[in-house]
Amino acid sequence: MMKIATIVGSIRKDSYNMKLAQYMQKRYENDVAFEIIPIHDLDHYDQDVEEDAPESIQAFKARLTDADAFLIVTPEFNHSIPGVLKNALDWLSRGEKEMEGKPTFIAGAATGALGTVRAQMHLRQILNAPGMGANVLPGNEILIGRVQHKIDEKGNLTDEATVEFIDGVIKQFIQFTQLQKERATL
Amino acid sequence: MMKIATIVGSIRKDSYNMKLAQYMQKRYENDVAFEIIPIHDLDHYDQDVEEDAPESIQAFKARLTDADAFLIVTPEFNHSIPGVLKNALDWLSRGEKEMEGKPTFIAGAATGALGTVRAQMHLRQILNAPGMGANVLPGNEILIGRVQHKIDEKGNLTDEATVEFIDGVIKQFIQFTQLQKERATL
Repeated sequence: MMKIATIVGSIRKDSYNMKLAQYMQKRYENDVAFEIIPIHDLDHYDQDVEEDAPESIQAFKARLTDADAFLIVTPEFNHSIPGVLKNALDWLSRGEKEMEGKPTFIAGAATGALGTVRAQMHLRQILNAPGMGANVLPGNEILIGRVQHKIDEKGNLTDEATVEFIDGVIKQFIQFTQLQKERATL
Repeated sequence: MMKIATIVGSIRKDSYNMKLAQYMQKRYENDVAFEIIPIHDLDHYDQDVEEDAPESIQAFKARLTDADAFLIVTPEFNHSIPGVLKNALDWLSRGEKEMEGKPTFIAGAATGALGTVRAQMHLRQILNAPGMGANVLPGNEILIGRVQHKIDEKGNLTDEATVEFIDGVIKQFIQFTQLQKERATL
């Protein structure tokens, strides 16, 4: 089963984006294995310590080496991605470059109407940098606006159209990953 | 004299962007006072601890309350600003919102040809978010490419055209700040 390393851009306890990641983890557990990798304890990226990286970084990177794919679920902070998420990505762009060539998709939830669209635009540009080199699923933008009205106390998505859309994205992502593999072996 | 809080996006010791900030600090010391405020020790932004913020955050924000203006000098990491800088900005977008309404300008240096242009595009979008509300100097893009050939061992900029350009930006920034003040009092 495809192992999808899942990074959540918010570190607050009741994060809607964490709930979304956990909801997806459970809903698609027979199809793919989402493994949520925490980023709250990572040191700030510093080129000076890169060669002898802090333990938090080594442990983080070690958990990602055998990931088949990546999912990033993030809120929008100030029209971009949170600093804590960018910092995690900055580390992944160095050394082993754990995301390089890996199928990746993106999701985001917000209480506002726009559903993190600006953060996702930035994120796609970031993931396109040579250091990152992620293989990002085109289109399939999981942008959940007004999330506070679409998720219940148990963390279940209650908005049918949203659930159907995400179901479709998961299918697309699995096909996308298989297609990359087939094409790569030609 | 105008006090300009200066935030440098790279935390490595020999950062070109830090050198650039220090060069400007010295060159324009009779005109404005650049105060360089470190960001390497800030905790990751976490809404859960915002009300009772860690000491590092309280000290950081306290140093910025009496700033007349802001300068951000940053490298580009993965087509955007470094996570450590975004994290500092995320903190400044909350509570007292220290940058709100403050005249702000931007500079960046890179060893590559493009001189951080993509990072600065993202940074301008970030600073335009309601939480930030910075009053950013239009145009006047200090984009220093191939910086390793334009700065000497003592940290002096040796490229005349670059120095002249920055001289002009400083003048523009002072005029911009005065203009905002005049208009605000009408």
